[in-house]
Amino acid sequence: MDRERELRRYERRHDPMRVLTLSDGVFAIVLTLLVLEVQVPDLRGGQTLREALAEVRPSFIGFLIIIVVIAISWAGHRDLFSLIRRTDRGLVWLNLVYLFPLSLLPFGAALISRYQGEPVALRMYGIILLLIALTRFGVWLYATNRQHLLFEPIGRRTRRVGMLIAAVPAALYLVGILISSAAPGASLAIYAGVPVLYFVGVFLGRSTAPPGSPGDDFT
Amino acid sequence: MDRERELRRYERRHDPMRVLTLSDGVFAIVLTLLVLEVQVPDLRGGQTLREALAEVRPSFIGFLIIIVVIAISWAGHRDLFSLIRRTDRGLVWLNLVYLFPLSLLPFGAALISRYQGEPVALRMYGIILLLIALTRFGVWLYATNRQHLLFEPIGRRTRRVGMLIAAVPAALYLVGILISSAAPGASLAIYAGVPVLYFVGVFLGRSTAPPGSPGDDFT
Amino acid sequence: MDRERELRRYERRHDPMRVLTLSDGVFAIVLTLLVLEVQVPDLRGGQTLREALAEVRPSFIGFLIIIVVIAISWAGHRDLFSLIRRTDRGLVWLNLVYLFPLSLLPFGAALISRYQGEPVALRMYGIILLLIALTRFGVWLYATNRQHLLFEPIGRRTRRVGMLIAAVPAALYLVGILISSAAPGASLAIYAGVPVLYFVGVFLGRSTAPPGSPGDDFT
Amino acid sequence: MDRERELRRYERRHDPMRVLTLSDGVFAIVLTLLVLEVQVPDLRGGQTLREALAEVRPSFIGFLIIIVVIAISWAGHRDLFSLIRRTDRGLVWLNLVYLFPLSLLPFGAALISRYQGEPVALRMYGIILLLIALTRFGVWLYATNRQHLLFEPIGRRTRRVGMLIAAVPAALYLVGILISSAAPGASLAIYAGVPVLYFVGVFLGRSTAPPGSPGDDFT
Repeated sequence: MDRERELRRYERRHDPMRVLTLSDGVFAIVLTLLVLEVQVPDLRGGQTLREALAEVRPSFIGFLIIIVVIAISWAGHRDLFSLIRRTDRGLVWLNLVYLFPLSLLPFGAALISRYQGEPVALRMYGIILLLIALTRFGVWLYATNRQHLLFEPIGRRTRRVGMLIAAVPAALYLVGILISSAAPGASLAIYAGVPVLYFVGVFLGRSTAPPGSPGDDFT
Repeated sequence: MDRERELRRYERRHDPMRVLTLSDGVFAIVLTLLVLEVQVPDLRGGQTLREALAEVRPSFIGFLIIIVVIAISWAGHRDLFSLIRRTDRGLVWLNLVYLFPLSLLPFGAALISRYQGEPVALRMYGIILLLIALTRFGVWLYATNRQHLLFEPIGRRTRRVGMLIAAVPAALYLVGILISSAAPGASLAIYAGVPVLYFVGVFLGRSTAPPGSPGDDFT
Repeated sequence: MDRERELRRYERRHDPMRVLTLSDGVFAIVLTLLVLEVQVPDLRGGQTLREALAEVRPSFIGFLIIIVVIAISWAGHRDLFSLIRRTDRGLVWLNLVYLFPLSLLPFGAALISRYQGEPVALRMYGIILLLIALTRFGVWLYATNRQHLLFEPIGRRTRRVGMLIAAVPAALYLVGILISSAAPGASLAIYAGVPVLYFVGVFLGRSTAPPGSPGDDFT
Repeated sequence: MDRERELRRYERRHDPMRVLTLSDGVFAIVLTLLVLEVQVPDLRGGQTLREALAEVRPSFIGFLIIIVVIAISWAGHRDLFSLIRRTDRGLVWLNLVYLFPLSLLPFGAALISRYQGEPVALRMYGIILLLIALTRFGVWLYATNRQHLLFEPIGRRTRRVGMLIAAVPAALYLVGILISSAAPGASLAIYAGVPVLYFVGVFLGRSTAPPGSPGDDFT
């Protein structure tokens, strides 16, 4: 009886519900805040609206890429937490740490869309992306290493696939940061290319993996 | 036993809950972000506040129409997902793609309220509306085509009504885009008229449909 | 069996859950958006920060009053929906209509805090408050008139108290609007006084009402 | 039978669910609104982006500290409400009062990052922090004093630890406010130091407390 009460208390205190509500709130806000960066242009003397909108276009494309980054992050967050039954103090804080670089994305988006040729801007934007990938890696490592936090034991292969999904982008973003001065164009291409790579990976993983295989754990 | 575990895992991974939390977050933010577009006017020399507010009025009306568009979209989203029991990878991503043009509405609203006579502005705003209708069409098609994602099989007539509800606005918005240069006034009238049409349709559907008929599936 | 399926479908389609998620999202955003109206002042030549902040103070007080208005509205919304078991098409749309003037409050707050002596500003702000009270009245009337939407039948006295809680502020706000030109100071006092009245009412209702009496239905 | 109905009504009316949804919404928005304060710099004549970003750095650090303050507040809010089973009128309103200074944090952050040497700015920022700690203290006192609001009786020691967790920061913030004119640097150090102190406390509490001890109730 007392043991049961203890258990119920334990479950209450490790309920992931509010972690998900907060995270979804942050994701939703970051997703829509980006729109605020795309400003309706003021027409300067003699300029047509078409010309003014053409000026807005690069910021629009940058904004689109970052929306995809956030969408991928959210889908990954959803997949991960579909495995998680309980959240302890460490996981709660790791998730907060993960949300931090995520909330910096609108700033990074504004920076990169205005100064896309500048190494400093490329470096800062890359660091934000790198931090997102690294903290994601940390959350995955922490959670999958603690069986009592999961609904069911997770296979070694699934665990590795999950680590790769965060580690490969992290490595690529690091390259992007390191070459930002020497080759700003290549750096930008890497940042824009990683999301594409993700979809290719998901597509390949889908067509080759047998049903019920670890590839199924990631959207 | 093992089969049961497999099933529970399947259900967990296809739980629509977070898709709804994220979507409601985006809807709520887009709904209230629009208000930021209605600026409190600064009085210029000799101008009264009444005159200054009169200048804000067109932007206010545009804002009102778009609030109605978002409200209709949300009500439709709620109706659709009341049929959906599970979300697979495709549906999760289709829903994200649907949320994207929706989050562009505040930008479109700002554009149209400031340059409502300009064909380029009308075209861009129309494209946003068209994308919302098309992605909505896609979500409906995808979900109703997969019985295992639904609570119960859906009738052919209901399915067609749902497709029409997205296809008819899409067609009208396309007309609005195509005539934006030749007849900007008519284009604007179409954009403002589609929501009205929606309410007329709901009202007629309600008064003629027998109880329990497919018309009941849409708000 | 078939009857049971029909029932489950009925319940699903009338589930109030998402209406609450959207409403809470809008309330949370409106509550925090108000802060954006309180700007950190730029110091003009020779001005100290203390003087600059003193200029911000009136906008701060207006902001505080409106926060209280929103808090009361949210508490009332929560109380009402604690009685509601199902939401039909009419209630879903009435709730959306209710959220509309609510989302205008940050605009109204910015207007009143900058032009608090101006009859036009007082009138517009009063209209927003009046619309909130009237739509709240409508939601209450609609819901309590439909027993199948409620958890349990509601007494006639409770119903009347709920109507008064919306009707009395509506009447007062109407007075505030009508006297905005003749007596702007009195108009402003009414707008600021209604929330105070609310708390006095709740306090009196609490100390005189026997436990389990209708007064308990409202926070 | 009637008694049971009464009980169900009682539970419905005291359900904490919406209090949590609203609170998480406010937390998520405040967390991401802070980013809006970090502006992408405009380059002045001859200035490089690196120099311009260096100017943004102090505001970035201030922003980081405040993110930590909000994260701590949210984790504490989650811990507290994991003990709470029912919310009565008083608790609902106390929680709203708690959310109020919290929503002022972006304003405080903007103020302190721009005028960090100014006593008035330090005082105002300190008052916001003090109000958060005091209202948190009030919520804790109110809730833990009412056994019928809790899942299970709370021990005297746990109760005191919870009071200290709010009272100690409150006392320190008060010192920070009082010395803001005489020693602005020390005042700023206190504001920045309290979150650090919190983590040290959690870490020490963790390593010395036996499992199941009251220290476990706080994240």
